Amino acid sequence: MIDLYTWQTPNGEKPVLMLEECGLDYRLEMIDISAGEQKTPEFLAINPNGKVPALVDRNGGEGQTVFESGAILIYLAEKTGKFLTASGPGRYETLQWTFFQVGGTGPMLGQWHHFTNAAPDQIPYAIDRYKKESLRLLGVLDDHLKDREWLAGEYSIADIINFGWVRSGLSGLKGEGTETLSHLMAWTERVGSRPAVKRAIEKLDHAKRAKSG
Amino acid sequence: MIDLYTWQTPNGEKPVLMLEECGLDYRLEMIDISAGEQKTPEFLAINPNGKVPALVDRNGGEGQTVFESGAILIYLAEKTGKFLTASGPGRYETLQWTFFQVGGTGPMLGQWHHFTNAAPDQIPYAIDRYKKESLRLLGVLDDHLKDREWLAGEYSIADIINFGWVRSGLSGLKGEGTETLSHLMAWTERVGSRPAVKRAIEKLDHAKRAKSG
Repeated sequence: MIDLYTWQTPNGEKPVLMLEECGLDYRLEMIDISAGEQKTPEFLAINPNGKVPALVDRNGGEGQTVFESGAILIYLAEKTGKFLTASGPGRYETLQWTFFQVGGTGPMLGQWHHFTNAAPDQIPYAIDRYKKESLRLLGVLDDHLKDREWLAGEYSIADIINFGWVRSGLSGLKGEGTETLSHLMAWTERVGSRPAVKRAIEKLDHAKRAKSG
Repeated sequence: MIDLYTWQTPNGEKPVLMLEECGLDYRLEMIDISAGEQKTPEFLAINPNGKVPALVDRNGGEGQTVFESGAILIYLAEKTGKFLTASGPGRYETLQWTFFQVGGTGPMLGQWHHFTNAAPDQIPYAIDRYKKESLRLLGVLDDHLKDREWLAGEYSIADIINFGWVRSGLSGLKGEGTETLSHLMAWTERVGSRPAVKRAIEKLDHAKRAKSG
């Protein structure tokens, strides 16, 4: 059995999408980050960085613990042989768009969200900085998708990992310059309409409600 | 022949370390980011995100283009069979600490650097935010290294990818709370004293001087 420690966030939903796409059995262990559960000693023993998601695959002995959503997706892809070709140029095309998300849209949209919604004061310079950089990154994806169905050949972990932050960015930055990103909007529709993706979002939503009571 | 498009930055030096560690032949193509060369049409054709580093491996036909330092390191590791074990728990331990760098210390120290050195005004809230988060992330690495020589079993791409930003962070945040990070400082010494790492830093420095004239 695979235990996934996660929460309903753009990073937290990535492995749920992947587990559903791969058809694996798993159990959701909800870590309520609004209650600080990601900083408990029990969770820090799984991920010393104190962040969701983290995965423990208990099949076969002591099991495999993996944290960082990018590493989890590669682990599951290599476990199942799905959504990341084992060799050839397509493999690295997939990995480069995977890292693009982890080092780009994730932190930049995360900072935009922080300065827009969480910081105690509105700091126009910071809000503008992260809005511009987020829009630039979304624009890179949009341009890349102008003649492609998926980010790297077939549907892959690159699409799975990019989906949540793109959806969050298109929603949060609506009316701020996203209206021209038609290729990216169409791709978001394509990913979002996949049955496994719908199941993942519903299961995570249900698990969060059950946990929050 | 491998062409590496890069510059003397913490991200730009990662693949140089890796190429030297692997003993591969390569050519440095210096992209002067202070002159905006990463935004030329020629470079955008290699990396549409307009960032260094990017690699073109011209061996065998049309060649393989890879951007994003994390993807480049995995490409070179899988090409040579070095610094990333092909299977087993150690592989994912290496990958999780690789992604930890790309999504964590890289963007957070990058933002700290921006607000400290590049932003037009000093914004105490932003400087403090990124200083605290950078120190927290460096502390996670320090604690992880308290009973380990390397980040994930043997010396690996996890060490190679983390080195530059850690060195930059320990230097930039000197006197601001890094003085207790003795395990991380010792690890930085261990990585930095490797002959391949020394060669990489020297070659990059030489190439930058040659380019800057």
